[in-house]
Formats: sequence, structure tokens, C-alpha cells
Amino acid sequence: MKILAIETSAKAASVCLCEDEFLIAQSYQNSGLTHSQTILPMCTALLDGCGVKMSDVDLIACAAGPGSFTGLRIGLSTAKGLAWSLEKPCCGVSTLEAMAWQAAHIPGPIICAMDARRNQVYNACFSSDGESLTRLTEDRAIALSDLFEEITEKKGHIVVGDGAELCYNYGRKLGAELKLAPPHFRFQSAWGVARAALVQAKTGAITDAEGLNANYIRLSQAERERMERIHKMKGE
Amino acid sequence: MKILAIETSAKAASVCLCEDEFLIAQSYQNSGLTHSQTILPMCTALLDGCGVKMSDVDLIACAAGPGSFTGLRIGLSTAKGLAWSLEKPCCGVSTLEAMAWQAAHIPGPIICAMDARRNQVYNACFSSDGESLTRLTEDRAIALSDLFEEITEKKGHIVVGDGAELCYNYGRKLGAELKLAPPHFRFQSAWGVARAALVQAKTGAITDAEGLNANYIRLSQAERERMERIHKMKGE
Repeated sequence: MKILAIETSAKAASVCLCEDEFLIAQSYQNSGLTHSQTILPMCTALLDGCGVKMSDVDLIACAAGPGSFTGLRIGLSTAKGLAWSLEKPCCGVSTLEAMAWQAAHIPGPIICAMDARRNQVYNACFSSDGESLTRLTEDRAIALSDLFEEITEKKGHIVVGDGAELCYNYGRKLGAELKLAPPHFRFQSAWGVARAALVQAKTGAITDAEGLNANYIRLSQAERERMERIHKMKGE
Repeated sequence: MKILAIETSAKAASVCLCEDEFLIAQSYQNSGLTHSQTILPMCTALLDGCGVKMSDVDLIACAAGPGSFTGLRIGLSTAKGLAWSLEKPCCGVSTLEAMAWQAAHIPGPIICAMDARRNQVYNACFSSDGESLTRLTEDRAIALSDLFEEITEKKGHIVVGDGAELCYNYGRKLGAELKLAPPHFRFQSAWGVARAALVQAKTGAITDAEGLNANYIRLSQAERERMERIHKMKGE
């Protein structure tokens, strides 16, 4: 199955073409340019470079969130446009699950983290046996203090994502023995999206252009209002 | 320092742009198309995509061998052409050292291997402390039997490169506890070339277009003639 995957949930953008698990081609860019300028040319250059037509692609996968609202919308719009025009099936995957795949070769627990501001992270935790992932929590927005209360076993967690450093620094102060994933697989990548999509496709969890939607995972309104009250009280 | 790196030593091709250790952009392709068709368009699309001019690049790095003779010549010719026309410094790096960087985040010994046919590999061994590499052997062509005689400590080696699977299967039969690097960092990549070039550049080991040469690492003539005699005796 040929999977074209798109990742635009953060500052970096990437696209890749996979044949099942096998990576045929990937383009990654973290140049600071806006995804709306770069992502479609990246897709077309990638396919052209491989001599593969858009019509040869079997599944279009996209990171559906959490992440930058604008980034996600650009990626999902691109995926929807391509899927709709060519009537291709789609697969929206958790940005956090996709980044967990980056570290799935290392057996042990994985903390996925994206900076959600104010000492909070978008987070999910997984466990790897060195080959496959087991999800330990839902995707959520969580205060770093709550996350590290939850992690009672303080050893051996590997931290990935663009909020990994934030999470690592916070956890270390509390005495947690964390491992920061090295830069070349710390961040989101289209390969992770394709890998997560392959698992979903095998269970039939695919949709079409219309059914592809973002999952922003914001804090509930009650929580946001509570945070605002606290910040007002502190005079921030 | 902006490094443009090129990797064409095997079937896959990749190019990347780094700012020191930081990966700005990378394109990877393993589509089966010839590097002479793909590598220069990959370089120009990569730089265009980032809004970076060739004249902004500080160093051109290239995998210099061992590897596919044709592949290396295409990569090195491209690097030479770019460097000569713009009078940029160059850096030829060991293909094996570049691929070792892919696994340098995992503390322990690393076996780099490329298939050199007839149960031989192009090989070098390294040791990682989780951040930097220590070279344990020179780059060489070696029979798998000799390699595993040399590796007396049979535990914990991670195997990378396009000969990793060959090496892994051979070593496992002898009871060696090897770890096969997962596909997304098993193979050569331009990022590894840029990373190795950064180390070389810091020690002043750079050259110009004229000084950039391949390092094929063939077996010595005596060894080749001996192998031929053995194969003739076996009637192969």
C-alpha cells in the first residue's frame, strides 16, 4: 500500500511516500517558511522525484492534531484537496502517536510532548516493546505538574516531540531519570504519520476527504476559565 | 555554519542542509531511479524550498566511500561541480562514519556494514557514549567470518548500514547478540554526512573541489587474486 503522509503540526513540515513500512522518499523542512508556501510543492516534488503519480497513491495520511491550529489546517486542507480531487481514502492520525513511532525502536515507556504554553503540554504516553506501541493514555492537554505526579516510576522514559526539552527540564528538576530523544528523531515527521496510518488502515480506521478532521484537544472551557482566574489573581 | 550534504553511496540518495548540528531540511529518496537523474534536482529543490541560495552555503560535504562506485562518482561529481563553480570548501567523509552517526544516540558499540559481496562487508566499528563517537577500527573490506572473530564481546552491538541485515543474520548464527537498527535510521543519510563533516571541519580537515576524492576501499590485489583462486578451486 502506497501511503503519502503529511506532517504540519509544528514549525517543521514534512511529507513522505511509503510502501507499507518501507520509506520510499521523505522531504523535511524546518526553515521557518510558512507551510502554505512549502507543503504542496514538497508533495509534488517528492512524487515527481520518485516517478510516482498522485493516482498511484493508495492512502493519504495526515497528522490531525494536536498542534498548531494554522499548521494543522494547512496540512489537512492539502490532504483533503488531494483526496477529494482523486477520490482517495484518507487517514487522520494523532500527532502524538505519530511522534511516538519515531522512538518505537527503543523498548520502554515513551512520553510524547508538545508545548501547550503556561507549563502545560499536549501529551500522550506509550510503551514500546522495541517494535510496536501500546497506548497508555489518551491524547490530552495536561499541566506538567500533573503529568509528573502521574509518572510514579521515574526511570527510563524517553521524551519526544517539540515539547520534549520543556518536559525533560521540568521532569529532571523533580528527579525523574528521563532520556531526551536525539534531534534526528525527536521531532514530528511524516514517516511517523505514515507508520501510524498503516496501523489504522489495517484495522479499517480510514475515511474520505469529507471525514478528515482536526483534533485540536484544547483544555475544556471550565479549565481555561479557571486558569484565567488564577492568572488574574497573580496579576499576570 | 551552513552545510549542504550529499549521500549517494548506495541505492538510496539523500541531500540535506544543516546549520551546524541543526537539520534545516532533508530530502531522501529510495525509489530505484538513478542518482544522476535525481541528486541535482534534489539539491536545488531543497535549497529553493528553504529560500537559501547556493552562495549562502559554507561547506559542501559528500560521502566519499566506501560504496557503489557509480553512486559515489555521481555524488562527488555533483559536490565538486557545485564547490568549484562557487569556490566553496568541501569535505569528503567516510560513508561508514556518517552512518554510525545515525545510531550515535544509543550508548554502546556500533557495527557499520555495507555489502561487499561474497560474504564480505565494507566495515568500520565505533563506540558511542550516547553523544559522540570513538572510532575502533579503520574503514576496511573484511570477511564476515573475520569480523565476528574480532568481535569477542558478543553482546549489545547495534548494526547499521545497507549491509546490516546480512551482518546481523551471519552474526546471530554464531550466537552474537546483535541489535538491528530500525529502518528509519539503519541506512545512510545526508544528515549523517553533515554530522561527520561538522566534526571534520572543527579539526580543519576540509579541502576544495580539486581535493575531494573517492575512497573505494577495495580489497588488495593479493587478496582478490587469492579469493579468485579459492573460487576457481571450488568450481564457482
